[in-house]
Amino acid sequence: MCELLGMSANVPTDIRFSFAGLARRGGETGPHADGWGISFYEGRGARAFHEPAPSARSELARLLRNTAIKSRIVIAHVRKANRGRVALENTHPFSRELWGRRWTFAHNGQLRGVKKWPLTWFQPVGSTDSEHAFCWMLDQLQGRWPKLPSAARLDAAVAELCAALAGLGVFNMLLSDSRTLYAHCGKRLCYLTRCAPFGTATLIDEDWRVDFAQETRKDDVVTVIATKALTRDECWTDVERGHVLTLRDGAVRILKPGARRPTRVAAPCTL
Amino acid sequence: MCELLGMSANVPTDIRFSFAGLARRGGETGPHADGWGISFYEGRGARAFHEPAPSARSELARLLRNTAIKSRIVIAHVRKANRGRVALENTHPFSRELWGRRWTFAHNGQLRGVKKWPLTWFQPVGSTDSEHAFCWMLDQLQGRWPKLPSAARLDAAVAELCAALAGLGVFNMLLSDSRTLYAHCGKRLCYLTRCAPFGTATLIDEDWRVDFAQETRKDDVVTVIATKALTRDECWTDVERGHVLTLRDGAVRILKPGARRPTRVAAPCTL
Repeated sequence: MCELLGMSANVPTDIRFSFAGLARRGGETGPHADGWGISFYEGRGARAFHEPAPSARSELARLLRNTAIKSRIVIAHVRKANRGRVALENTHPFSRELWGRRWTFAHNGQLRGVKKWPLTWFQPVGSTDSEHAFCWMLDQLQGRWPKLPSAARLDAAVAELCAALAGLGVFNMLLSDSRTLYAHCGKRLCYLTRCAPFGTATLIDEDWRVDFAQETRKDDVVTVIATKALTRDECWTDVERGHVLTLRDGAVRILKPGARRPTRVAAPCTL
Repeated sequence: MCELLGMSANVPTDIRFSFAGLARRGGETGPHADGWGISFYEGRGARAFHEPAPSARSELARLLRNTAIKSRIVIAHVRKANRGRVALENTHPFSRELWGRRWTFAHNGQLRGVKKWPLTWFQPVGSTDSEHAFCWMLDQLQGRWPKLPSAARLDAAVAELCAALAGLGVFNMLLSDSRTLYAHCGKRLCYLTRCAPFGTATLIDEDWRVDFAQETRKDDVVTVIATKALTRDECWTDVERGHVLTLRDGAVRILKPGARRPTRVAAPCTL
């Protein structure tokens, strides 16, 4: 299996603290030593870093945890290979262009038989079931609309495609089109929203404590989503199986199976 | 304008020496301070690094010049913006997937009116004429063949598309599909092939000298192509305007305008 990390924020935000925790799980505090990757959106573009080697012992991962790259949408992944050999082309997150937007995708789980699902416009470069599933989702979206539809239509379509893929196995997933961060919980995913009044947090995987009150402004809203909680002293909320989260500017909405409209989740600061 | 650097080799090869020279031209020994990027192919995948900031003062570029990433195909670019603002999405090299292969493209020059050329399957994410030209090339290839054609057919098509684009202005370009490195000279491009017996070389842009005899095996063949010579004591060959070079495993073939077959360039070691 693998672990996922995503972030959505209303201001460019430094994710080093959370990434440091995830990176240690890539071969030190966790067994996900077959590769790692991270994409930081910056406007419509993204900085992406991939290595088919353990993040816990990576010079590049060390540079990233020492460099403040500020972003409003981040997707990261540490890999424990099951389908597809350990290779750069099989290292998440994957990316493609659709409708002039850069899409990024990372997956945790297995999807039996997905490689038999036909593809038209997007083809995998590597041999993972994950990349095939990503190509299938983009193929379906391309087939529905010649250009970017409204956010509400896109949200509903992404939820529908996630439900179809989840029928094949475990489908924990993060996806972004540079505007929205989508998350689907197949089995395990949790999140938290940080906003004023900010407190402190301590990583589970190493001895690092941050006082967010020192790092933020009062209007900042940052939601972090991960396979397993990354901090020991904050309240993480489990996502229910089959639910899709849409995150824009740190705000969370939940699309439940069969529901026609999303449920807005109140951030702690607005409770 | 900008500067380009490409490499094709028959064994995974460390390009740090050449990249160090190029990186200094990104804001120190040259004016190309509006961004830089480099893609290292590793099998079908690629490691790509981009920053919309000067390479000469980049921590990431410093890490890359201190880390041996071995690759058989590399494309790098330092940018002096003319069309398209300084932004991550406008930073070369650009990449897309076609026929299940990862394509990478970098351009130096200006192409007047290219944005009026219609696109079907590939759309630019940023606002440069370069990315539009890249999308147009892939669109044309996608329209001709549903899957990867023979190398000879693809070579001829790439040369034809380069000639069409060169009609709009200056089109110095590097392109790869993970198998071949293509180069088109619109105005300025030069190359050299290193093979046994290997000698020494000294960078123009900094005080760095390498004895390749210590770094290589006798069968290694490495061709480096750049906008301007990177070393002071080697013999660089200018590419003629309108010529396309196809580089596979370090071997150079030249496609001249109107010629039906490529001319093989003998490497120094086979002369």
